[in-house]
Amino acid sequence: MSTIKRFETAPTQFQKVGDIPIAYREIGAASGVPVIFLNHLGAVLDNWDPRVVDGIAAKHRVIVFDNRGIGASGGLTPDTITAMARDAIAFIRALGFTQVDLLGFSLGGMVSQVIAELEPQLVRKMILAGTGPAGGVGIDKVTQVTIVDMLKGYLTFKDPKHYLFFTTTANGRQESGKFITRLKERTKDRDKPISIRAFRTQLKAIHAWGVQQPSDLSTIQQPVFVANGDHDRMVPTPNTFDLAKRLPNSEIKIYPDAGHGGIFQFHNEFVAQALEFLAR
Amino acid sequence: MSTIKRFETAPTQFQKVGDIPIAYREIGAASGVPVIFLNHLGAVLDNWDPRVVDGIAAKHRVIVFDNRGIGASGGLTPDTITAMARDAIAFIRALGFTQVDLLGFSLGGMVSQVIAELEPQLVRKMILAGTGPAGGVGIDKVTQVTIVDMLKGYLTFKDPKHYLFFTTTANGRQESGKFITRLKERTKDRDKPISIRAFRTQLKAIHAWGVQQPSDLSTIQQPVFVANGDHDRMVPTPNTFDLAKRLPNSEIKIYPDAGHGGIFQFHNEFVAQALEFLAR
Repeated sequence: MSTIKRFETAPTQFQKVGDIPIAYREIGAASGVPVIFLNHLGAVLDNWDPRVVDGIAAKHRVIVFDNRGIGASGGLTPDTITAMARDAIAFIRALGFTQVDLLGFSLGGMVSQVIAELEPQLVRKMILAGTGPAGGVGIDKVTQVTIVDMLKGYLTFKDPKHYLFFTTTANGRQESGKFITRLKERTKDRDKPISIRAFRTQLKAIHAWGVQQPSDLSTIQQPVFVANGDHDRMVPTPNTFDLAKRLPNSEIKIYPDAGHGGIFQFHNEFVAQALEFLAR
Repeated sequence: MSTIKRFETAPTQFQKVGDIPIAYREIGAASGVPVIFLNHLGAVLDNWDPRVVDGIAAKHRVIVFDNRGIGASGGLTPDTITAMARDAIAFIRALGFTQVDLLGFSLGGMVSQVIAELEPQLVRKMILAGTGPAGGVGIDKVTQVTIVDMLKGYLTFKDPKHYLFFTTTANGRQESGKFITRLKERTKDRDKPISIRAFRTQLKAIHAWGVQQPSDLSTIQQPVFVANGDHDRMVPTPNTFDLAKRLPNSEIKIYPDAGHGGIFQFHNEFVAQALEFLAR
C-alpha cells in the first residue's frame, strides 16, 4: 500500500521471491489494479522517466521493479525472455496480486508479451512501448546499435542515451538533454547499477528473441496500447506497426521526430493517452 | 607565432600537408623550441586537459593537433603507429619546425617513440605519459578495456573516462569529475568528434603495437621524462617502468592513487616537473 506521490522519494523496498530479494518501488494510489512497469536493456529503477511514473501514479498504483539479477535484486538474470517473464510473474504473485496492468518498455515489452501468453488471466491491459514481436525486424542488431552508440557517446562527450533514445535533430537533442537531467533528479537511495555480466545476458536474450520464430499474438485478447517514436533505431519503428497488426485488440500511437525514447520525449501526451486507455 | 595564453580561446587553425588540411591550435610563447602534443585514442583537440596545455604554454610555444583523419583534420587515419608517426613528422615539417619537443600521451606516446626513431634529429626532448613500448604488457587488451569501461559508464550514468582515466577511490572519483568538467570549459569552436571508423582504425594500430616485437629503444638518446598513474588500466603501469628501463636517458614519475589520466589528475605537479625537465 502506498500513498507516495513522487517517484523521486519512493523508497527502494524488497520482496522475497523464494530466497531471492527483488528490489522495487511503489507509488501512487493505495488500491486498484496496479500497473507493473517492466524495464529496458541495462536499466535499473532509476532509468524510468520520473514524469511517466508520476503521471501514471497520479491515477494508479504503480510498481517498478528490478527483475531477478538486475540492479539491487538478488539472483542471476536468465538468458531468455521467457525465463524473465516467469521471474516477473513470480514477483507479481509474491506481492499478492491476481490481476495487473503491464507497462513494458523495450526489453520489458518483450517480457510483457510472454507474461500475457503464459498467464492470460493475470493481465488486464498492456501498454507496450519501443518494443517488437519475436522475430521482429532489426531486433537481432540491438547489440551492434548499442555498442556503436556507446562509442558515439564517448567520442562526443555525451551520454549514449542521446543517440539510443532520441533523434539527432535540434529538437531531439534538446529533449534528450532534458530526459537525461530528469533521470538524475533522484539523488538519494539510487539503485545499484546492473552488472556487465547481467547486461550481456540481457543482450543474449534480446538477440535470441530477434531471431526466433514469431509467436501467435492473436491469442492475446487483452486491450493493448502500443507506442513508439517514428525513428526508433534500437527496436526499429516498423516493429510497433507489426505488433499492432498482430495484436487483435490494439491501438497505436507514433510520436513525431522521436526515437526509442518517444514515450519519454512526449511524456505529457503519452501519460494522458495511457491514463485514458487504462481508464476505459 | 602565438601570444595566446589560454587553450580555451586558442582558435582552431589549419595547416595543409600535401593536399590535406591538418587541424591544430597554438598557444604560449611566440618563439623557442615548440612542444608538440600527441593525443590519445579517440581524442581530438578538446580532449587535452586545459590545465596541462596552459601550464606548459606558460613557458613554451605549444602546438596541439589532430593527426591525419582525426577530428577536423582531413584524410584517413592510417592503421599503424609508424604511419601515424610519418604523418606527424610531415605536419611538424609543414609548420617549418626543424627541432621540437614531444609530449605524447597514450597512443600519442607510442607515435612519439617512432618519431624519435625515424627522425632523431627532429626531436630535442620527449615526455611520454600513460604509454608503453611496442609489445608492452596488456596493450593488446586496450579494445576490451575500452569497451568494458564504456559499458560501465553507460550503466552507471557516467562518462567512461571516469573508469578509463581514473581510479575508483573516493579521491579518484572526485578528480575524474573535475577533469571531465575541465574538458567542457571550452564552449566555442569545439573540435569535430573523431569518426567511429577512425577510432576503430586507431584500435587496430594500438593492438598491432601491443603484439609486435619490442624495438630497440636504446637508440633513443634524447632525454625522456616518463610519467603515469600507479593504477593505469588502459596501458598498464608496468609499461611505464618498462619504458624507463629501455630508454637510456630517462627519468620516471609515478603518481599515487591515479590511473591512465595521472598527469591530468596531478596537473600541478606534472606541469612543474615537465617545465623543469624541459628547461634543464
